[in-house]
Amino acid sequence: MEKFRNVGLIGRAGSQEVIDSLIVLKRYLVARGLTVVLEQEMAEVLPEHGLQVSTRECIGEMCDLVIVVGGDGSMLGAARSLARFSVPVLGINRGRLGFLTDILPHELEWKLTEVLDGNYTTERRFLLDTIMYRNGEPIGEGSAFNDVVVSSGEAARMIEFETYINDQFVYSQRSDGLIVSTPTGSTAYSLSGGGPIMHPDLDALVLVPMFPHTLTSRPIVVNGNSEIKIVFGMENQIFPVVTCDGHDKIEAEPGDSVTIKKKPHELTMIHPLDHNFYAICRDKLQWGNRLFE
Amino acid sequence: MEKFRNVGLIGRAGSQEVIDSLIVLKRYLVARGLTVVLEQEMAEVLPEHGLQVSTRECIGEMCDLVIVVGGDGSMLGAARSLARFSVPVLGINRGRLGFLTDILPHELEWKLTEVLDGNYTTERRFLLDTIMYRNGEPIGEGSAFNDVVVSSGEAARMIEFETYINDQFVYSQRSDGLIVSTPTGSTAYSLSGGGPIMHPDLDALVLVPMFPHTLTSRPIVVNGNSEIKIVFGMENQIFPVVTCDGHDKIEAEPGDSVTIKKKPHELTMIHPLDHNFYAICRDKLQWGNRLFE
Amino acid sequence: MEKFRNVGLIGRAGSQEVIDSLIVLKRYLVARGLTVVLEQEMAEVLPEHGLQVSTRECIGEMCDLVIVVGGDGSMLGAARSLARFSVPVLGINRGRLGFLTDILPHELEWKLTEVLDGNYTTERRFLLDTIMYRNGEPIGEGSAFNDVVVSSGEAARMIEFETYINDQFVYSQRSDGLIVSTPTGSTAYSLSGGGPIMHPDLDALVLVPMFPHTLTSRPIVVNGNSEIKIVFGMENQIFPVVTCDGHDKIEAEPGDSVTIKKKPHELTMIHPLDHNFYAICRDKLQWGNRLFE
Amino acid sequence: MEKFRNVGLIGRAGSQEVIDSLIVLKRYLVARGLTVVLEQEMAEVLPEHGLQVSTRECIGEMCDLVIVVGGDGSMLGAARSLARFSVPVLGINRGRLGFLTDILPHELEWKLTEVLDGNYTTERRFLLDTIMYRNGEPIGEGSAFNDVVVSSGEAARMIEFETYINDQFVYSQRSDGLIVSTPTGSTAYSLSGGGPIMHPDLDALVLVPMFPHTLTSRPIVVNGNSEIKIVFGMENQIFPVVTCDGHDKIEAEPGDSVTIKKKPHELTMIHPLDHNFYAICRDKLQWGNRLFE
Repeated sequence: MEKFRNVGLIGRAGSQEVIDSLIVLKRYLVARGLTVVLEQEMAEVLPEHGLQVSTRECIGEMCDLVIVVGGDGSMLGAARSLARFSVPVLGINRGRLGFLTDILPHELEWKLTEVLDGNYTTERRFLLDTIMYRNGEPIGEGSAFNDVVVSSGEAARMIEFETYINDQFVYSQRSDGLIVSTPTGSTAYSLSGGGPIMHPDLDALVLVPMFPHTLTSRPIVVNGNSEIKIVFGMENQIFPVVTCDGHDKIEAEPGDSVTIKKKPHELTMIHPLDHNFYAICRDKLQWGNRLFE
Repeated sequence: MEKFRNVGLIGRAGSQEVIDSLIVLKRYLVARGLTVVLEQEMAEVLPEHGLQVSTRECIGEMCDLVIVVGGDGSMLGAARSLARFSVPVLGINRGRLGFLTDILPHELEWKLTEVLDGNYTTERRFLLDTIMYRNGEPIGEGSAFNDVVVSSGEAARMIEFETYINDQFVYSQRSDGLIVSTPTGSTAYSLSGGGPIMHPDLDALVLVPMFPHTLTSRPIVVNGNSEIKIVFGMENQIFPVVTCDGHDKIEAEPGDSVTIKKKPHELTMIHPLDHNFYAICRDKLQWGNRLFE
Repeated sequence: MEKFRNVGLIGRAGSQEVIDSLIVLKRYLVARGLTVVLEQEMAEVLPEHGLQVSTRECIGEMCDLVIVVGGDGSMLGAARSLARFSVPVLGINRGRLGFLTDILPHELEWKLTEVLDGNYTTERRFLLDTIMYRNGEPIGEGSAFNDVVVSSGEAARMIEFETYINDQFVYSQRSDGLIVSTPTGSTAYSLSGGGPIMHPDLDALVLVPMFPHTLTSRPIVVNGNSEIKIVFGMENQIFPVVTCDGHDKIEAEPGDSVTIKKKPHELTMIHPLDHNFYAICRDKLQWGNRLFE
Repeated sequence: MEKFRNVGLIGRAGSQEVIDSLIVLKRYLVARGLTVVLEQEMAEVLPEHGLQVSTRECIGEMCDLVIVVGGDGSMLGAARSLARFSVPVLGINRGRLGFLTDILPHELEWKLTEVLDGNYTTERRFLLDTIMYRNGEPIGEGSAFNDVVVSSGEAARMIEFETYINDQFVYSQRSDGLIVSTPTGSTAYSLSGGGPIMHPDLDALVLVPMFPHTLTSRPIVVNGNSEIKIVFGMENQIFPVVTCDGHDKIEAEPGDSVTIKKKPHELTMIHPLDHNFYAICRDKLQWGNRLFE
C-alpha cells in the first residue's frame, strides 16, 4: 500500500524546465495511481492536465506529501505556508543542485520511486516568527525559514539598536543592521555576511552584524530556543525595516521593538536516502577548488 | 610675518562643544591679528561675533587656511567643497580624536600656535569623481572623499552588475553592492565591510564587495589612477543607487553605468608635527586591547 | 549549615596579585570555619599557611568546591584535571576580568559570601577528548576545554587532511590546520581565526579552518555530540601535530587519524548571581567602542 | 631578426607533464634556430638533449629570455634567483593556469610564436629583501617574491612583537605572526589569511596579522617603498622564525629585529598579449560561481 496517497504539486512556474519536470511528475504520479493536486500557479502552465486544482493551504491540509518544483526560493515560500500543517515536503530543482531542493530533473523518476517506496530520510527544520511591537502592542508580524533581517532599510545607512537575548542585554550596536538566521539560512545571506555554516540538525540561531561600527562585533551563535529582542533607538532618524526571507517587509518607527523566536511548528523535509548536507556544500561551495597548487 | 593671514572657520554647529571651540578659536585668532571669516552656519551659533560672514565657496577662494570644527563627517563635507580651491584645511574635533579631525579641544591653542608659527606637516589626499551615464550621456554626478557606494539602495537586496577597471572586465557580480574607497575612506565604511586599512599616502583604491553571492569575492586594491566602471545588468528589477560619502544619492536604471575616478584636485590637509596615522589607529581601533591574557 | 565544607585552592602562582588573593581567601575561608586544602604549588607561595596540602586529584576527590586563582589559562588546566570529579569550580582572576575567572580581587569577599551562602548559579560546560590512531590502534590522547588544534606543527606550512563528521565525509582540505572548539573556546583562539562566538550553554562544536587554500572554507558549527575524525593524507611530507588547549602535543605520521568528541564528564562552574556572559563579552571585546562617530 | 637569441629553460622537473612540455619546447626553439641552455635539473630528465647545460646563475647572465616550466612555486624560485639579472622570464604551467605561469601546455607553441615574434607585454614586479639583526648586526637574510612570514615558528603559538613602518611605531601585537606580502603574494598565503587582492602593478605591501589577539587588527596596505621593521619582545619564550616564500627559514632570538623592504632589482615578466590579471582571478577564484540562484 502507498504511504503517500495524495500528493500536492507546488512551485514557481517561471521556466520551461519547471514545466518539463511537472509533465514528468504528473505522468509518473498518475501512473502510480496517486491522487495529484495542483496548486493554481502550476495548473496555469500545465494546460489540459485533468487534475484537481487547489490553494496552497488546502493542499497543506489534504495532502500526505507536497512536492515543490523550483529553486531554493520556492522552498522558502512553501516552508512558510506549509509549516503549520504536518505535511512533509520534497524539493525538486529546475536545473542545478539547491541546498533545499536536492533532487535534479534527470534523477526525478528514480529518486521519486525510492521515496514513494518508503526509502527516504526525514529532517525537521524550524522556522522563525517575528513580531514588531509599538508601545507594547503588536503591529506587524512575519515568518522566516532562512532569516530575519533588521536594517535601516537602505543600503549603506546605519541604525542604532539594542539587542537582548532571553531578556539579557547583549549590546547597543550601530551598524547597517542584523541578520538573525536559522541553520537553514546559514548557507544563504548570513554566509555572505561572514556568518558560520550551521548543520541543519543544529538547534541554534546565529546573529550576524551587518557592517558594524564596532570591529569586534562578530557572529554569535545561541540556543535555537532563544528569544531575540531588538529595540530601535529613539534617536534613529530613519525608519528601520524588518524583512523575513527577503520578503514581508515590516516598517518600524524609532522606539519600536522586534522579537524573533522559533515558530511552534517545524517543517518536515523528505530526502532521498543518499542525501548528505556536506555533499551539497562541497558542490555549491566548490570545496574541491584550491587557490594554490 | 604670518603665513596664514585669512582664516576661514567652517563646520557643523550641532553641539555646545563646537560653540566652545569656536569661541576659543575666534579669541585666539583675532588676538593674533588674523582676519577670520565665518561660514554662515557657524555665524548663527556665535552671536555678536563681529566677524565677516561668507559662503563656503568664498571662504575657499579668499582664505589661506580653513579650520574645520566638528567630527570626521564635517571634514568630509569640507573636503568635497574645498578640494577645488588650493586652500589647506585643518581639523579640530569636538571631543574625541577623529581620523581627519586630529586636534582635540584641550590642545587647541597650543597646537594652533605651532601650526600658525609654521611648524606643521602637509598631506595631500585625493577625492573621487563619480558620473552616472544613461545611453552614453551623463545624467548625474557626485564627489567623495571617503567612498562611493553602489548598491541596490535597499538593505539586504541584491543587484547584478559588471565591474571594469581601466576597461578590463573584472567580474559580473551579484551582491548587495560595491564600496569603492579611497585610503581616507579605508578606515570608515570599507573597514566595517572587511576592507583593508590603507595608509593615507598610498595612491590606491579598494573595491569591497557587499554581501557577495560568490564567497571568493574579496577586497581588491588597485592603482589610484584607475578608472572603475560599473554597468548595471538589464535584468535588475530594482533601481540601483550610488551614494558619495553617504550623501548625494544618484538613482540608476537597469542598463545605466557609473564611472569612478580620482578628482583632478587634491585636498591639502595640515597636521601638527606630531601627527601620526598609526597613533590615531591605535587610539580609535583600540589596538592595545587583547582578547587573551 | 554550610553547603560547601571542604574548599580546595588551586591556581598558578606566578604573581604577587595571586598571593594577595590567596591570603585574603585563606583568612576569609578559615574565619568562616571551612576546611581549606591547598594545592602544592599554592602552598609554596604561602609560607606558614598551616593548612592541609594535597595534589590536584585528591582535592578533586575530597572537596565540595574548588576555587581557582589565576587567569583563564589556570581555569583551563583546572577544568581538564577536575572534570572527572563532580566538584564544582569557581574562578578568581588576578587582575582583570576573564571569560572563565569572573570574580575580581576587589570583590572577592563580597562575592564569595554570596556564593557560600548559597546564592549562585551553576553552569555545566563540556570538554573534548581527542585520540590519535595509527593503524587502528590508539597511540596518544588528550583533553581540551577550549580547543583541539590539528596542524602542520609549523606556522605557515600546510597539511592535507580529510575531515569526517559522524562518519560523513565533509571535505579534503589543504590548510595550515583545523581548530575544533567548544563554546568555551569560541572566545579564544577560534575567534581570532574568524570563528563565531558561541554562547556557553550551546551544545555545539565549531570547526575553523586555518589559512585554507579553498577560500569558500568557512567555520562550520555542528551538534556538540558529533564525532569529528581527521585523517592525514599519506602524501604529507611533514608530521602533523595535535594540541589540546595549546598543550599536550601529540605528533602524527602521514596516514594517522584523530578523533575528537565530547568528554563523558562535564565541568560544573559556579558563578555569582549577577554573572552574565554578554557582560563579559562587552568588557573583553570592547563592544562599546565605535569606529565612527 | 630574433629579439631573444639565447633562451634558458629552468623549472622543477617533477612530472611527466613537465618533460612533455620540455620536449615540445626544445624542438620548437631549436627549429627556430635559437640557442637553448638547459638548467642542470632539466637536463637530467631530458636524456640525449644535445643542448648546453648550465647553472641558473649563468643562465641569468647569458640568456635574453628564461622560460620557467612548472607551477607558480617554480616561478617563485626563479624570480628569487634571476631578479638581479635583467633577463625577462616567461612561465609555462604543467597543467592548469597559474597566477605566474600563465601559458598552458596546449597553447605552448602558438603563444610562444607570438612572444618570440615580439608580440608580448612586459610587467615589472618587485621582490622583498629581509634581514635579521642581533645587537645591531645582520645575522641572516632572505629574498621573497610572494611574502615574508614572521611567526612563532609553531602553529597555534603566539609571539609578541612590535611593528614599525618607516620608523613609525604601528603596534605591539600578540599573534601567531605577521605576513608581509607583495602584490604578487597577495593571491597566495596572504589571501587565505584575509588579506586583500592587490593588482600586480600596485606599488604596495600588505601586512596581514595571523590570528591576532586584538580583533581590531586588520590587514594594512602601505606604500611599496616602506621599510617594515619587526622587533621581537624580550619576553618571548620561543624563538621566532622568519620564512621567505615558505623557504629560507631564519631563526630569531628574543630581542632580535627583522627589516623587510623592496629589493633594488625588479623582475621583468613576459606575458602573451591577451594576458589579463582579472581573467586569471576569475578562473582561479571561480568568480563565476554563485551561492544562491
